[in-house]
Order: sequence, then C-alpha cells, then structure tokens
Amino acid sequence: MAVVSPSTSLTLEVRYPSRPGMLAQITAAIGAVEGLIRDVHIVVTENGSTTRSIEVEAWDEDHQQRIADAVAAVPEVDLLNWQDRTFALHRGGKIAVVNKQPIKDRDALSRAYTPGVARVCTRVKNDMAAVYRYTIKANTVAVVSDGSAVLGLGNIGPYGALPVMEGKAMLFKEFANIDAFPLCLNTQDVDEIVATVKAVAPVFGGINLEDISAPRCFVVEERLQAELDIPVFHDDQHGTAVVVAAGLTNALRVTGRELAQTKVVISGAGAAGMAVAKLLMSFGVGDLILCDTKGAIHAGRTAGMNSYKTAIAQQTNRDNCTGSLEDALRGADVFIGVSGPNVLAVEALRAMAPSPIVFALANPTPEVDPQGAMEIAGVLATGRSDFPNQVNNAVAFPGIFRGLLDSRVPHVTQPMLIAAAKALAATVAEKALCPELIIPSVFQEGVCEQVAGAVRRVAAGAS
Amino acid sequence: MAVVSPSTSLTLEVRYPSRPGMLAQITAAIGAVEGLIRDVHIVVTENGSTTRSIEVEAWDEDHQQRIADAVAAVPEVDLLNWQDRTFALHRGGKIAVVNKQPIKDRDALSRAYTPGVARVCTRVKNDMAAVYRYTIKANTVAVVSDGSAVLGLGNIGPYGALPVMEGKAMLFKEFANIDAFPLCLNTQDVDEIVATVKAVAPVFGGINLEDISAPRCFVVEERLQAELDIPVFHDDQHGTAVVVAAGLTNALRVTGRELAQTKVVISGAGAAGMAVAKLLMSFGVGDLILCDTKGAIHAGRTAGMNSYKTAIAQQTNRDNCTGSLEDALRGADVFIGVSGPNVLAVEALRAMAPSPIVFALANPTPEVDPQGAMEIAGVLATGRSDFPNQVNNAVAFPGIFRGLLDSRVPHVTQPMLIAAAKALAATVAEKALCPELIIPSVFQEGVCEQVAGAVRRVAAGAS
Repeated sequence: MAVVSPSTSLTLEVRYPSRPGMLAQITAAIGAVEGLIRDVHIVVTENGSTTRSIEVEAWDEDHQQRIADAVAAVPEVDLLNWQDRTFALHRGGKIAVVNKQPIKDRDALSRAYTPGVARVCTRVKNDMAAVYRYTIKANTVAVVSDGSAVLGLGNIGPYGALPVMEGKAMLFKEFANIDAFPLCLNTQDVDEIVATVKAVAPVFGGINLEDISAPRCFVVEERLQAELDIPVFHDDQHGTAVVVAAGLTNALRVTGRELAQTKVVISGAGAAGMAVAKLLMSFGVGDLILCDTKGAIHAGRTAGMNSYKTAIAQQTNRDNCTGSLEDALRGADVFIGVSGPNVLAVEALRAMAPSPIVFALANPTPEVDPQGAMEIAGVLATGRSDFPNQVNNAVAFPGIFRGLLDSRVPHVTQPMLIAAAKALAATVAEKALCPELIIPSVFQEGVCEQVAGAVRRVAAGAS
Repeated sequence: MAVVSPSTSLTLEVRYPSRPGMLAQITAAIGAVEGLIRDVHIVVTENGSTTRSIEVEAWDEDHQQRIADAVAAVPEVDLLNWQDRTFALHRGGKIAVVNKQPIKDRDALSRAYTPGVARVCTRVKNDMAAVYRYTIKANTVAVVSDGSAVLGLGNIGPYGALPVMEGKAMLFKEFANIDAFPLCLNTQDVDEIVATVKAVAPVFGGINLEDISAPRCFVVEERLQAELDIPVFHDDQHGTAVVVAAGLTNALRVTGRELAQTKVVISGAGAAGMAVAKLLMSFGVGDLILCDTKGAIHAGRTAGMNSYKTAIAQQTNRDNCTGSLEDALRGADVFIGVSGPNVLAVEALRAMAPSPIVFALANPTPEVDPQGAMEIAGVLATGRSDFPNQVNNAVAFPGIFRGLLDSRVPHVTQPMLIAAAKALAATVAEKALCPELIIPSVFQEGVCEQVAGAVRRVAAGAS
C-alpha cells in the first residue's frame, strides 16, 4: 500500500465563497482521494470569498495531481494554483551566504575591505592561529562530492548531487551551527579529486567527503588525510559507522548481549560496510563476517576482491565461512545491511540466534522487508523515518565536526569515533531505552553537544 | 602628516563617576593626542557610575595605543578595555552560510534532505535549466584567488588573501545580493588553478578571479573561459577597466574632449593596464601608449616583453614612442596609473596637454603625489577614499555579475563591458558632473542595477 509522506506533499491555494460548510466539502474531497491534510491557513478573506492554502501529504506526484483535480472539481471552489512542497523548498537553492555585519557606509567598508583589511592580511599571512581567529576557516566545512554514489540514486554526477550537498550543509548549520559549503566536483578521477580538495583547503577547517563510491572513497580519504592538516571525514563511512555502533550498543543492552560474545554479519563491503566493520572491531566485537554480492569475504577468496577486502579478510570471519550471506547468518546475533534493497528473505532471519538484532539500512527499500522482520527481530532498525530506530547520520556528523573544529585537531581518529558512538548511545536515557528506541531523534535536544563533547575530550587527551 | 581613518579606529570602553564634566575630560584627552571621536554610546549607568563605548579614529596602531593610554590617564576613569575596530569586525570571519528555511521538524527534513531530495536530484541531474532553478548555482559566484598579487601587499599566499576574498564576498552580497564564496587556492601553478576551478565549477553561476598576478592571470582567465560554460571575470582586469572607462568618459566631458582625439598614457602593463588599454581601444581612443618599468611598449622592443605586451605593441603607440614614461606623457591628454607608488614627479604632468586628466590609482600611495597633481590636473582620480573620484571596482563588478547571472550567459563579452562602463558613467547625473564628481559613490542608490541592466540588454541582444 502506498504511504503518504511530507516529502511528496503539496500546497493547494483555493478560493471559495465565505460560507459555512465550504471547507468541509474541500477537505472531504481531499480525504476521498486519500490525501492527508496538514496545515490549513487563511490567506485572505475579502469580498465575500475566502482564500486558503492547504497542505496535503500525497504518496507520489501522480497522487498530487489527483488531489489537485479532486479539489478543483468541488463546486464553487477555484483552485488558484498548487505546488509540490519539496520543489518549492528547493527553489533557488536552500542555502545563502550572508554578511555577519552590513556594509552600509565608508566606515564599515574601510574596515571590512581596503584599506583596513590589509592589516588583517598581514597579521594572518604567516600565523595560522590568526587565520583561525580572523577568517571563516575555524567554523567552515567543505561538503565535497563527485556525485558518484548519491543516496539510493547512484552515479548522478555533480549537478544531480548538488541538492543533497546543499541539504547536508543545512544539517551542519541547523544542528551544529557550522558554516558548510557544497563543492560538487566535475571529475570522478581520484587524483583530480585529491588535487582539487588540497587546492581549496585553506578556506576550510574540515572536509566532509560525501557520496563518493567505494573503493575510490577510501583512497581519496587516505590521501587527503595524509596530506592535509585539517580533519577529513567521509560521512558515508564513519558517520554511518558511529551511528550503527551507537545503535548496536543500545540494541545489545536491550537484548541482553555482550559485544565480545556477539557475532555480527554485515551485508555490503562498500564505504559503509568497511567502516562499520572496522569500528565494531575497535569496539571489541566477538566475530564479524563481511559479505558482498559474492557472499562471505574470507581469507583466500579471489573473486571480486580489492585490496581493502583482502586486508579485512585477515581480521574477520574467524571460522572462515565461505558461503552465501544466508550461510553466514546462521546462528549470528546481528545482521547489518548497508547494501541494497531486498537482498534477504525474511525467512533467513529465522536461522539467526533467538531475538536477533536486524539493522536493514538500505534506503528507501531495506535489505529485508521491515514488516516481516519486525515479527522475528528483537530489535529492528532501518534508514527510514516511518519505522522506529532510524539510523540517520545527522545524529552523528554535526557533533563530530563540532568537536573536531572546536579542538582544532588535524585528524579524526578511531578513539574519537569510538567516544562519539558511546556518547551517542548514552543520549538515549536508560529509562527510555527499549526495542523501539535505541537511537535518538535528530531533533532530540543536546545530541550534537554530547557527541561534540566526547570528541573534544579525546582530542584534549591526545594533544 | 598622518591622517586618521576609520580603518585604524578603536573602541574604548570606559567607566567613570556619573558626574557632569567627566565626558568632557575624556574627550579632551582624546583630542589632545589627535584622536578623532566618532560614535559615543552609553553601555550602562548604575551605582553612580557610567560605562560608555567611544569609537575613535587613529592613524595607526601606535596611535591607537597612545589614545588608549591618554584615556587611561584621566583621573577617576577606568579604561575597561579597548579593541581595534578593524580586527573586531574580522573576528571569526566576515561571512556565514545560512539556511533559507529552518529544519525544525521531520516535515522540513524529509523535504530538504532524504527522501524528498531524491526527486529534486533526479529532476536536475540531466537538465541544466532545473539546476539553475532548484540549486544555489543561479545566484552563486566563486571568488577565486591564489594570493599572488593582493592589493598593495603582493604575494601573500592563500591564507593572507582570505580576509580580502571574504570582504569581496561581502561586497557581492551588499551591493548585488549575490551569494559569493571565497576559494583561496593552495597553489600558484596555472594548470592546477585551471584544473581546480574547472572541478568546482558545477556549484557556481560565475567565477570571479581576484588578485592573481600577471601574466599568469591572463592565461588562467583565457583557459577557464574557453573551457567553462559560465562567465569567468578577472576583476583586477575588467572591473578596473570598466570603472576607468566610465570615469574617463565623464572626465572627457568635464574637460571638453572627444575620445577619438585623445592621447592616453598608461603606466603599468599588468592585469589592470592591459585590460584598461584594450577596453579604451574598444571605446575608440585616439592614441594610447602603454608603459612599464622599462618605458613605452613599442613594436620592436625586446627587453622585458611577454606575448601579451608584444601583441598590444602592434595595436598601440601610433608614433612609436620608444622613450620613458615621461617622454610618452609629453602632450598627452590622459595619464592612467595602474602601477606603483611615486613613479612620476608632479612636474612631469606639466608636459602634458593643458588641463590634463590624471588617474593615479596605485593604492595606498598613488603614482604621483595627489596634492601636487590637483594643482595641475583638470580632473584627478585616485584609488583612495580620502580624495575626490575614488576609482573603486565595487561600483562595477556587483552590477556586472548581477547582469551576467540574470542573463545566464556563458561568457562576459567586450560589448557587455562597454555597455557597463557607459551605464556606470551615466549614473553621475548631468547636473552633478564636475571635476570632483566623475565616478559615483559605491553607496549611491541604483548603481548596481543600472550596470546590471546594461549587461542584460547586451546579453539579450546577443542571444
């Protein structure tokens, strides 16, 4: 059954005679075609007629049209116009660059620009502390993507990726008050990506890599981190890993398990899968099997390998499972899907340990049917907002970057990620913790600050 | 004599007994050391004492200290603190990235980011019109510098340049409502600059090159313009040329000259000199001699040439003057200095035609002493705000970019620059026109819009 969503909602603007019963006819018409009404506002009342805007959730663009048609068909109602609320929000782009102080007279101009700026330039040119003090660098992050692996959309290039990167910049601002600017690159060549980010790095206090496909993303991240003196963080890897580790920490608590006695199977050996595997190993997971489309990754496997898979094969899969994902899952405590839609039948979960933990994070369609999985799993998490336990990186990366920028450390380290994950897990209060609440909402107060604090403490200890 | 300036002003915070005569003592102390008082505010009055902030213009940092010391020495006055107003304005950087709409709930989140954003991505990925409609591209400009030729500071690198580029972004916002973002590059290699700008170009609707030294700036601009489908504009060249051409248009009117009968001598064959020369030739100047540190550039000269100078030697210097700058100036109507401090003695101006036009634009110290030049020149313009006729690019580039972005043209053309210069000249009303007013103030209402309109009209005609 199709589900209505704010992401496909519309705003209708209607005018009708100001008379009792009219609004009821309109809302009835919307209800009859299964539109879900949200806010209803009066725009203007004049000359005996009323103009209203009505927000309605639909399930897709065809449904939007059907709702609009239904309203237009109500007698005596003029449908003045309607618009898709998502496209309306994106019109003209979603972020702006603004001046912290206006330049309204010569006084301000001569301080912000020439001649006054020359003294500031002279001060900062050879003094990195002054750069952090007198320029935007200290609070500015580049959101860098080549558009090669965007959400569930794949390789859609730099233009296709731009709405996502602007959105990411919005999350930086909203949750961590960080000034983030999107850089969508017109190249997917590793050397060119590295060279470009290195060239623009002076302006930024940190680099957030986003939606770059594996295994190129590993090379880009490693090289940039080795060559830059500001933190480089690939959110698809480490942001995801931190949220998964936090969620798993709480899921183990809810199901009465110890991590050291836990067997985890991960579906997906891309950016997220690799990073989740590494972070869980740092956390001390009992055993872990990483699977890709060819099944379990094991020492000695040759088909479909790369240097990253070969390396991780040495450290995981203790019993050298050589079979399929389903084989690997037999007796496992935890399934973590960071791969693609419907790779697993619900029945396969029955071969896992009792009350298994299932994180099926592929978006928008999880690895296993979430309705079916809920029947079997002790804890279920997805990437979706319409099920409990949404694994959403927005609970992690704003706080991680806030901590990195505040600490002015040159690199993000594994201990920082571990601390961030533990702090994130702890944001779910003990008494609130339950199978349906292992990860905080992105809108829960204080999440960013608690994660940031954890990162700052590790940074302070390390320096 | 040293001149006080808002660019070296300070704010003093003082507390003293609330009693008549106290403020007089403080202001007298400031006056006695030649500080010029600006705004005086009450911060708080309580417990019989008054706390005030007092803004004072000084002539340099030592003078600031003397003023602070003088105030601190007034009996019964506590100097609580004082700060340099220029550094205060730059603290934390001067621009911010903000969200056009907040993300306060799941409704907004699901439209700005996943899942709603996916529909926008799909729409824009192969449709450039949709990119301009639903992303920041249409109103966003990159301010790109390698820090190799910053103001009067020279090669101070990307960090030193950042306060200027942030300031430039502020001017874009203040005067043209354009979202500009500074990119200070950690390379001065032409190939790397070109590759970097090409790589980041998808996010931007235009590229403003800034403070890149000649002749590299010519190569960078030419290559980028050839390879990108958005306008690339080197403000040091073309912005300066437009303002000079506009100012000269009005100066000729004031002194009763026709451009076709006018002989112009330019000191400086760098970015600005070359561009001014080319634009004035497009305008139909009578004759023009470009001079560098080795004197007049002429056909057949071999010392200190480059391909750009060789090319322009073919088109200028009709009588093949081979001498010094002073030789070239003999009988000339117009001197335009875009070179360095004090390259010319005031006396040299006496060899020019009667009532000569002198644009001595080197900053902060002009090519010729402006006080002396005022005695001789029919019209004098400088780059400084403390003389009449400041040649300030901020009257041109915001309007030019506004026009370029609005028109969505792939290139800026010579006809657009000519139209911009004419429109800029026309912003000085006929009845206001006089030797002391040939160029509008940056704060004059409507300047950006009139320049933008001229660019849009040319763009519309060309398309």
